[in-house]
Amino acid sequence: MSEKTIPYKIYLEENEMPKQWYNVRADMKNKPAPLMNPATHKPMTIEELSQVFCTELAAQELDDTTPYIDIPQEISDFYKMYRPSPLVRAYCLEKALGTPAKIYYKFEGNNTSGSHKLNSAIAQAYYAKKQGLKGVTTETGAGQWGTALSMACAYLGLDCDVYMVKCSYEQKPFRREVMRTYGANVTPSPSNKTAVGRKILEEFPGTTGSLGCAISEAVEAATTREGYRYVLGSVLSQVLLHQSVIGLETMTACDKYGINPDIIIGCAGGGSNLGGLISPFMGRKLRGEADYKFIAVEPASCPSLTRGKYAYDFCDTGMVCPLQKMYTLGSGFIPSANHAGGLRYHGMSGVVSQLYDDGLIDAVSVEQTSVFAAAQKFARIEGILPAPESSHAIKVAIDEAMKCKETDEEKTIVFGLTGTGYFDMVAYQKFNDGEMSDYIPTDEEIAKSLAKLPKIN
Amino acid sequence: MSEKTIPYKIYLEENEMPKQWYNVRADMKNKPAPLMNPATHKPMTIEELSQVFCTELAAQELDDTTPYIDIPQEISDFYKMYRPSPLVRAYCLEKALGTPAKIYYKFEGNNTSGSHKLNSAIAQAYYAKKQGLKGVTTETGAGQWGTALSMACAYLGLDCDVYMVKCSYEQKPFRREVMRTYGANVTPSPSNKTAVGRKILEEFPGTTGSLGCAISEAVEAATTREGYRYVLGSVLSQVLLHQSVIGLETMTACDKYGINPDIIIGCAGGGSNLGGLISPFMGRKLRGEADYKFIAVEPASCPSLTRGKYAYDFCDTGMVCPLQKMYTLGSGFIPSANHAGGLRYHGMSGVVSQLYDDGLIDAVSVEQTSVFAAAQKFARIEGILPAPESSHAIKVAIDEAMKCKETDEEKTIVFGLTGTGYFDMVAYQKFNDGEMSDYIPTDEEIAKSLAKLPKIN
Repeated sequence: MSEKTIPYKIYLEENEMPKQWYNVRADMKNKPAPLMNPATHKPMTIEELSQVFCTELAAQELDDTTPYIDIPQEISDFYKMYRPSPLVRAYCLEKALGTPAKIYYKFEGNNTSGSHKLNSAIAQAYYAKKQGLKGVTTETGAGQWGTALSMACAYLGLDCDVYMVKCSYEQKPFRREVMRTYGANVTPSPSNKTAVGRKILEEFPGTTGSLGCAISEAVEAATTREGYRYVLGSVLSQVLLHQSVIGLETMTACDKYGINPDIIIGCAGGGSNLGGLISPFMGRKLRGEADYKFIAVEPASCPSLTRGKYAYDFCDTGMVCPLQKMYTLGSGFIPSANHAGGLRYHGMSGVVSQLYDDGLIDAVSVEQTSVFAAAQKFARIEGILPAPESSHAIKVAIDEAMKCKETDEEKTIVFGLTGTGYFDMVAYQKFNDGEMSDYIPTDEEIAKSLAKLPKIN
Repeated sequence: MSEKTIPYKIYLEENEMPKQWYNVRADMKNKPAPLMNPATHKPMTIEELSQVFCTELAAQELDDTTPYIDIPQEISDFYKMYRPSPLVRAYCLEKALGTPAKIYYKFEGNNTSGSHKLNSAIAQAYYAKKQGLKGVTTETGAGQWGTALSMACAYLGLDCDVYMVKCSYEQKPFRREVMRTYGANVTPSPSNKTAVGRKILEEFPGTTGSLGCAISEAVEAATTREGYRYVLGSVLSQVLLHQSVIGLETMTACDKYGINPDIIIGCAGGGSNLGGLISPFMGRKLRGEADYKFIAVEPASCPSLTRGKYAYDFCDTGMVCPLQKMYTLGSGFIPSANHAGGLRYHGMSGVVSQLYDDGLIDAVSVEQTSVFAAAQKFARIEGILPAPESSHAIKVAIDEAMKCKETDEEKTIVFGLTGTGYFDMVAYQKFNDGEMSDYIPTDEEIAKSLAKLPKIN
């Protein structure tokens, strides 16, 4: 199909939407290392995992051989309320940059959670409901995951307990209020509601919390009550499975319009968006059917891929979760206070970590003032005010497009625009006022945090 | 086409998008009354109007005979960045209500301005740019219009001066910050920057402003500087013209899928959304080609159609704008302090007013606690957190669907979901906390305000 026929926005028809998720692990020669029991240092069994997660999700977590898994009809129906998401041709950005590159972005922000997180939230809530549970517990940092889960639970009639990192709870009262509008119980973490929360409060009375700490509280709240399970919005392989819907739609749209991506870019915090976006393309690469350059973009203030270690580590501060082999900065690592937005997790998806370790993905880190400058430029040119997280991918997409301008190459760049920044205006205000700063952790800081890795390695 | 083939969301193809706006005045037997010069009480000439508005827009304002006006290519291209907007089949809401009615909504919230306002903002900014102006001035209340105009001006490289009603400026710092991110100058109104602002501040030192007052300031800021014109987001006939894109897309989608609306519902503040949504359908009704029931929904706290008077009135507090014949509560009317969200204008579009006076539109007023209850229900069922303004239409759409349940009628209901409520969480919080109240102005209050209508009537 000729270039000219590509519209600004490609929406698939409802019947072109994926009917199965794609499990990239099935095509990986080197599988991600198994989750380990933190007490026994032995691979987690499905029985053990089912104490924390719904049984069906535990099974998905352990399944590294089935390439395609059916999307249940109820989830497909929910997807139809806000999907397919558009694959957008950034005609205006290309023109403004004067680049010969063709730039596309898969925009996941057109739903009230404001991000791609809803794709996995509805799946996890669905399996909880199917198992007859009363509700689910989770943590949220920037708030997108908590909002997504609240929406999914409201839709299905499930209880939803969200432990929200205290500094976010205080700085983002409107995020909290969206969750409450959807009927969720939102607790600032660390809290007095859990033993692990009380312990952390005792040890660090002034703490404003961390993602790792909120995870510990949510896991405790799930495992110590009848009828609850814990759900997580990133990092896990099951989440990447659900998020493959992003990549599958992108691939169908590309194939339909004869678009052949050279470079695929995603921001990476826990890896949910990046993994979901690239999965089906990575499958083609792993099967030798096509080649792509994949770029993971992470904040310079929380550089797990580019400066972390590939090792077993705790997923949470309380050390109650299974151990996972991943690129990590150490479970005690907390990005500096001036870091805005999400992408603040100390570790990384096991799948993404293994692919990166195998040299199948590149990674770069970028500083936040340059990220917000890219975000502002993008907003003014393309009309969408992006989330700080998504803007990491924008920054590198623009960099790559400018390289194409220098070399006069007509590369096709696809990036994931994971969400909108409507609840991140405090950070934008800092940037607009010229008060935003950068911080890059020192080697000593990272080494100190890595020194506390568990002994299993 | 059978019922079953209707997807959750109908997106038109790019080539099905309207290439012309529709001017409903051309088909009206009783035309809206002409704008009057406030000094001479004579119809405004294009020369006079061109002092305030861009010349092309002044011409559109006065044109009540041309049925179709070409959408310039540059505006069409901008539309393609965020349009077509989806016509959504509310399958989940229908099921939750247990109604035989078929409910559709035209969702205009999938853009960063969060509403339909962008449709006219880009048009007005385009004509200003084409005329070689430096910039435009405007007012904003709830902030959607100011955001939309900022986006359009950033895209075209125009200065954008926004006078924001002071209470909104203070209560919605994030709205303000979005506008700043798009490069707009945002001033709380009343301000010291204009003579009319200084006069109002002198007279009412503690005032938190009003839309009518902000309009006066913006008009002064446009007419006393070289290279600026004033633009307005609602009320004017030119705005309804641009907003006809909503109705035209809706009609094309309905025709394509064999959907025959019985009832079309829109919230009404100044009338921009309602007028835009119903225009092409009203055209069919006026030409005797079809019949529809149209319902304008307004807040009980600002009931211009249901309790106002059809008379010439000032459009602004400072009495500098042309006089317009419209349903009005009097230009001094300000909704009570507990009123949340937009739809707080004392008057109404002249087009909508005339159609209502001719009995072609019905109007109802609803109280805000019932509106927020409908909003919360809708958010939980359909997944979209609606703007308070849009929720007025939701409330009445649900009421109509429930009537269908009682009478077992399979009516087709279409309503305008003008935008999202992401910047209205203070109001949602009040509702969530059970602290929201209603207020209905007394007959005496309205009579007192109407007593100050200009003598032209």
